[in-house]
Amino acid sequence: MKNFPIVKSRRLRSTPYTDRIESHGVSSYTVYNHMLLPATFKSLESDYEHLKKFVQVWDVAAERQVEITGKDSAKLVQLMTCRDLSKSKIGKCYYAPLIDNQGYLVNDPIINKLAEDKWWLSIADSDVIFFAKGLAAGNKLDVEIKEPDVNILAVQGPLSDDLMAKLFGDQIRKLKFFNFNYYEFKGNKFFIARSGWSKQGGFEIYVEDTSAGQDLYDYLFELGKEFNVRAGCPNLIERIESALLSYGNDFDNRDNPFEANFDRFINLDSEVNFLGKEKLKKIRKDGIKRKLMGVKIEHNKIDMYCEKILTDDNDNIVGHVRSATYSPTFKKVIGIAMINKPYWDTKDQFKIDIDEKIFVGTVCDLPFI
Amino acid sequence: MKNFPIVKSRRLRSTPYTDRIESHGVSSYTVYNHMLLPATFKSLESDYEHLKKFVQVWDVAAERQVEITGKDSAKLVQLMTCRDLSKSKIGKCYYAPLIDNQGYLVNDPIINKLAEDKWWLSIADSDVIFFAKGLAAGNKLDVEIKEPDVNILAVQGPLSDDLMAKLFGDQIRKLKFFNFNYYEFKGNKFFIARSGWSKQGGFEIYVEDTSAGQDLYDYLFELGKEFNVRAGCPNLIERIESALLSYGNDFDNRDNPFEANFDRFINLDSEVNFLGKEKLKKIRKDGIKRKLMGVKIEHNKIDMYCEKILTDDNDNIVGHVRSATYSPTFKKVIGIAMINKPYWDTKDQFKIDIDEKIFVGTVCDLPFI
Repeated sequence: MKNFPIVKSRRLRSTPYTDRIESHGVSSYTVYNHMLLPATFKSLESDYEHLKKFVQVWDVAAERQVEITGKDSAKLVQLMTCRDLSKSKIGKCYYAPLIDNQGYLVNDPIINKLAEDKWWLSIADSDVIFFAKGLAAGNKLDVEIKEPDVNILAVQGPLSDDLMAKLFGDQIRKLKFFNFNYYEFKGNKFFIARSGWSKQGGFEIYVEDTSAGQDLYDYLFELGKEFNVRAGCPNLIERIESALLSYGNDFDNRDNPFEANFDRFINLDSEVNFLGKEKLKKIRKDGIKRKLMGVKIEHNKIDMYCEKILTDDNDNIVGHVRSATYSPTFKKVIGIAMINKPYWDTKDQFKIDIDEKIFVGTVCDLPFI
Repeated sequence: MKNFPIVKSRRLRSTPYTDRIESHGVSSYTVYNHMLLPATFKSLESDYEHLKKFVQVWDVAAERQVEITGKDSAKLVQLMTCRDLSKSKIGKCYYAPLIDNQGYLVNDPIINKLAEDKWWLSIADSDVIFFAKGLAAGNKLDVEIKEPDVNILAVQGPLSDDLMAKLFGDQIRKLKFFNFNYYEFKGNKFFIARSGWSKQGGFEIYVEDTSAGQDLYDYLFELGKEFNVRAGCPNLIERIESALLSYGNDFDNRDNPFEANFDRFINLDSEVNFLGKEKLKKIRKDGIKRKLMGVKIEHNKIDMYCEKILTDDNDNIVGHVRSATYSPTFKKVIGIAMINKPYWDTKDQFKIDIDEKIFVGTVCDLPFI
């Protein structure tokens, strides 16, 4: 696949860390929420190997926040998601599919509850702010909605706790998964969650004071030398091996949350009111005809820039692979695919055309084992 | 400015023409509405010179459509824009700022009225579909909202009429600016508007049949040889010289439509009901403190990836330039800037830091003369 340069502009927003990651050797970008998101540093495989052994600092400012405050804020946040948030607690993070009134997916943010009347939706790549603004205006809700100037730095990898404890003290080791709290470094307080877009462990630092965050970036490298810290970014290989879904890649506004395997976040029997509830009840009753599953393909290379069709021996459509990569762990191509119902349990092989050659693969459950 | 490759994925959608524009020598991309939009072919200046003399075929599939149909569709479309559409006619295109309930800009689409109950909003770079879905759900409007599979090809440049007449017949020469109609070529009907994101004249073909559109792409080149047709794309130099504004670059959801000089599309004294009307009335009454204007800078080069500050001799802030380019016509850098009120009429020079050197410039009216 030929490389094409990206043309920067104000519209493809740089982050407060862009100069720094370019000094640290970023080698390619993607665009996420109208913002530059690094895609590789040394190489996809080198970044992957390092992430699984050491610790990396990521510029994930592109994970933008939608801040919802005010009297009706809890009502609005609940209206947007099929996950029951009625028992949600301050200081916790909730992974929550957002649903439109047809039952289709809008985004899959992490919802951070900062107060009973203050929420940050840490969003995937779609303009949730306009969905929220439309809903609030239409329902005449008493809320304020904005994108605050928050720019996340993630610290990811098995040595994350060691590096973070060196800066913020040992108490940060006790922070539980999908919880957040405030921690101090050199006189600045930072909102830190134990979360992140890898399964290698780590934290996300929701930087509100840009200048303090830029200093923090530099200190993380200075103090991280002994842990072999490197600049990194969400890594395609790691995220697919870990089956972390990506809005826009693996599912989008044409898919419903059952098809995306979000069953445990769909609380249709709760009392809470949310958009698309009746549609989702009907979908549950009728049953779905396709869902996201894993695929393993007997090949060592795949370039994905649109979904690829999977067929059986009679040229019937098995499904479509939406994200895929060569996996050094499985020593084959693995991917996330929307698979049609008759093929969910099949052990038969499917066929796929990669660079005009036919390869074979099999459907499997997620996560990959 | 160093070049960085863009990493393709399903999320950064390719278009039905991506393979073709890559054969035709696209040399860089931007991302627009989660889709690849070509940014240069031969070079920015070569593309510009050619566009002003001949005719180009553009893959602008990234100008996505939000289709709104149904009984309440006119009501919903009107709710989203401060432009009075009560006298709008089928077959016409309306440039219309979309406004949230705080009076801020959401997008600046061209609204195509296909029927009394069918509208296509041909959008700039933000997810208008979720704004529409939120508003419709909140107001319980009887509408259907979707992104249809429409992929625009633009034919732009002074020889556009000649090329288009060769394919679609001479009657297409009579199509008026910002009108659309259906025209036939080789048995396929195409929705064609006289519009486009340049001031060099031309058409936008709203391709609904992907395969017919791909064939059309090839025919445009085959039949366009005598007009020296080339593959092209919206050109930074041409669009700034023509003062065509870009959502996300020149204005965004932190700006109101008065600040963006949309006065002639703000119908506050009309009877129609739209979001933010009272806020806009207050803004009109209070007056604005900054607005978009032109700037001319005595230099031959500028790389823009975030706004740059403009200061006067006492280091007071004159404003911020948001888009800029070297202009071969004006033989200096020209740009679009948000200028603070005390400096609207000044003939004094401002200072700007470009690549760590100080240059001087002046504020001017738009369009540039």
